[in-house]
Amino acid sequence: MSRIAYFGPAGTFTEQAARSLADGRELVPVETIPAAMAAVRGGEAELACVPVENSVEGPVTATLDGLAEDSPLVAVAEALLPVHFTVLTRPGTETVRTVASHPHALAQVRHWLELNLPEATTVAASSTAAAAVAVCEGEYDAAVTAPVAARTYPLRVLAEGVADVPDARTRFLLLATPGTLPAPTGADRTSIVASTANRTGALAELLTELASRGINLTRIDARPIKGNFGFYRFFLDIEGHVAEARIGDALAALKRRCDVRFLGSHPRADGVRATVGEMATDEDFAEAATWVEAVRSGRQA
Amino acid sequence: MSRIAYFGPAGTFTEQAARSLADGRELVPVETIPAAMAAVRGGEAELACVPVENSVEGPVTATLDGLAEDSPLVAVAEALLPVHFTVLTRPGTETVRTVASHPHALAQVRHWLELNLPEATTVAASSTAAAAVAVCEGEYDAAVTAPVAARTYPLRVLAEGVADVPDARTRFLLLATPGTLPAPTGADRTSIVASTANRTGALAELLTELASRGINLTRIDARPIKGNFGFYRFFLDIEGHVAEARIGDALAALKRRCDVRFLGSHPRADGVRATVGEMATDEDFAEAATWVEAVRSGRQA
Repeated sequence: MSRIAYFGPAGTFTEQAARSLADGRELVPVETIPAAMAAVRGGEAELACVPVENSVEGPVTATLDGLAEDSPLVAVAEALLPVHFTVLTRPGTETVRTVASHPHALAQVRHWLELNLPEATTVAASSTAAAAVAVCEGEYDAAVTAPVAARTYPLRVLAEGVADVPDARTRFLLLATPGTLPAPTGADRTSIVASTANRTGALAELLTELASRGINLTRIDARPIKGNFGFYRFFLDIEGHVAEARIGDALAALKRRCDVRFLGSHPRADGVRATVGEMATDEDFAEAATWVEAVRSGRQA
Repeated sequence: MSRIAYFGPAGTFTEQAARSLADGRELVPVETIPAAMAAVRGGEAELACVPVENSVEGPVTATLDGLAEDSPLVAVAEALLPVHFTVLTRPGTETVRTVASHPHALAQVRHWLELNLPEATTVAASSTAAAAVAVCEGEYDAAVTAPVAARTYPLRVLAEGVADVPDARTRFLLLATPGTLPAPTGADRTSIVASTANRTGALAELLTELASRGINLTRIDARPIKGNFGFYRFFLDIEGHVAEARIGDALAALKRRCDVRFLGSHPRADGVRATVGEMATDEDFAEAATWVEAVRSGRQA
């Protein structure tokens, strides 16, 4: 049976995302994001599930750096989870004096804690799941966790759907070594990382290659290149599938200009269909290519 | 005496940055980044010192969101600190069994810990300074902290200059309410936040306004607009001062296209002088404006 290595421990949002993408595969928690990627690169797992961006916290830099470096990995699927926390206590707990969680999670429920558990002291844990374990062991009174933790640990649900920002979401990727691509669906996302010289207008030129082909950009993240503060790689997500003419044509144009790595084409979890600019459909590209061919052969002008 | 509210507690990298920018002002730690900004907006402090980007961890999203929302604040100065950690223990500690710090700090010294304290268990704390306090109180054996913590707490320095990524740096901003701008130095940074409709080519057009005026972009961060996952604000840092012709001209062009907020022009901490594109000096702009004036008045063609 094939395996998915996910950024653990068990009982976190990433486990929840991996479970939604598992399709019967075995789930194996690993300790870090680089370790999940290394498991796929080394062949110990077929796939890896890692977070890539959170609407409150921003990009997950370990994931971006890991995709740009070492041997190539491509995203073959994604999951989008609402960041709604569950607050867990031991059965029988009457007064909550301490609440543990990862500092990111505590930051995202600060207002809720002020309103609902104003007397409680917050305590940092290394993950939401580690907080749940500490509550099981009697170390703290309550843990702020992913919903999936409620079925992993023998704890009581004190509150569900807890979130200061009600529409906060995290997007997760399912990564594989390069191979057969998922088929285009019309609602796809293509991801690339482009590294250009630090020159006035370099990024404007890259984005114009996309815009002039009617391609909609959905995300851009600039990450400093290690050992080069002030020099950046650009992680770009665009609407469409590399099998489509405008996307293939744009990627070829970028490849002529700079160093590009393909990070995958896969269906969007939110099902939003790609906006295709006027004159940028596959038919438009095919007709234009046919005309150029005819001009070259002297049949048309 | 005027005051600087900084993202505390005392003994952190932000205190160290605030101290380097203090110029005799009183330093007041506050609990969160939004609280530091609110202190300036409410008039309790003249200035706020907050982190804005880290070369390993990426943008500090609380700072970016806080600059884009509520009443305007502008950066009047910046500090750039190498992220080199100090490891502190209680005097007399012989064996280090537990090492506490903020999870981000622990992530940045993971290799060092594996090599130097392989037997120690890591424990999450809410800040590097909170870890030092916990060590003082005997809760843990060692803390991974900012160098400044060594003079804040009665602890012994076990190691200094600890960092897995030797050139990791964090940049901090000194924020004020809008007023007199720092004078141009030739090595300045101008920051803006631009919000555009989600339309194919929107970002390419904005960046082309900068590139066509010979302006070099040094940073771009896209942040989702709250309540609108998939819709982004763009935080742009560019080389130059708004007092310079090309920067003023570009900002006016952006203002015609989209919603723009000015986040300050101030000297760069690294002293790197602005690259100015050919034909984009103040003299070039003045000559061109003089010519258009002459054309309009019928004196030249």
